[in-house]
Amino acid sequence: MSAPNTKQIRLDEAEMQKAFEVIGDVQNEIDRLNEQASEEILQVEQKYNKLRQPNYKKRSDLISKIPSFWISVFLNHPQLSSCLDQNDENILQYLKRVDVEEHDDIKSGYRIKFTFDTNPYFDNDVIVKEFSVTESSETTCKSTAIRWKNEAKNGQSTSSSSKKSDGETRKRSHDTENNNNDHGAFMSWFTDTNGEGSNDEFGEVIKDDIF
Amino acid sequence: MSAPNTKQIRLDEAEMQKAFEVIGDVQNEIDRLNEQASEEILQVEQKYNKLRQPNYKKRSDLISKIPSFWISVFLNHPQLSSCLDQNDENILQYLKRVDVEEHDDIKSGYRIKFTFDTNPYFDNDVIVKEFSVTESSETTCKSTAIRWKNEAKNGQSTSSSSKKSDGETRKRSHDTENNNNDHGAFMSWFTDTNGEGSNDEFGEVIKDDIF
Repeated sequence: MSAPNTKQIRLDEAEMQKAFEVIGDVQNEIDRLNEQASEEILQVEQKYNKLRQPNYKKRSDLISKIPSFWISVFLNHPQLSSCLDQNDENILQYLKRVDVEEHDDIKSGYRIKFTFDTNPYFDNDVIVKEFSVTESSETTCKSTAIRWKNEAKNGQSTSSSSKKSDGETRKRSHDTENNNNDHGAFMSWFTDTNGEGSNDEFGEVIKDDIF
Repeated sequence: MSAPNTKQIRLDEAEMQKAFEVIGDVQNEIDRLNEQASEEILQVEQKYNKLRQPNYKKRSDLISKIPSFWISVFLNHPQLSSCLDQNDENILQYLKRVDVEEHDDIKSGYRIKFTFDTNPYFDNDVIVKEFSVTESSETTCKSTAIRWKNEAKNGQSTSSSSKKSDGETRKRSHDTENNNNDHGAFMSWFTDTNGEGSNDEFGEVIKDDIF
């Protein structure tokens, strides 16, 4: 603690004006340091993201050889398992590999790649769901178009990209929603690129919790 | 996307055991990288904390010469102003300087130093409230004992240190609470070292919002 200082040095109006100017300059310098710190922290994150990649790949390679690994993980995750039904289990038993890839700069988004064994539901072997954050902080989402094997019954799934601004929600058509639900909650989440409600939570759980 | 791979390489039991072992090793390596990343990020934060210090000091020096600066800031902050009453205003008009100092390692806590002009309420010129996080993640709080000028009426304030484990709350005695309330919400927060309810929010607002 400093020694008691009961003497006040107060300023006249011109001095006060000057003081506020200097405070502004000091504040700018503090802001500059804060930005520089954020930039350096991002660089550290990017560096370690690169260092983790070969380990993630090695882990994914090994996991892909263990039967029923991913469906077990999904069914044992409290949040995910409560969303999944028999349709999901039918499809997810063919899920062989999950890879999460952050964008190189980390801050602009990530993609989740799901690799499937040959299955009776769709022809794709790899389907990708990608979340991107634009410079104006707009979140966009796109996903691989699913080539369903039974299109006569289920119709074409929703796919391609869509944009979402804060607060904006777009309802899928009733038909499409029903079609998606035929395939369970997982495929419904995957094909929905409108980012409604808790949809992105699914992606966050996979990226942060499970992966 | 990789080329379609419909052939499955599945493992026998011994191979599977081995695969899980290697996955464990890879996971350990990922965990090690994560810890290393956290450590490097902390170092960046510590470096910039040091670089910011002289700017904070310069800003505090300048602000201390501007009459009524801090009481104006407190009264114009939506969250703080709603807590403050006339007793607070009486005391805070003498608040000349606020300094927030993170502990050197950043993660173990911070202290807020309040410097007052000579005032009719207490003899201290600098009073310090300090929040510490122990290695076992226990939060402790201590504050300077206030030397009230009118002890006959208000009694001795609560002071010295106390520990709080998760979920533990300790009620101040009714008498002491009344005494503190005589001096308003700010001094009540300052002297309360039990960290009840929203008390620490006050400190967080000063550290993160105002400072």
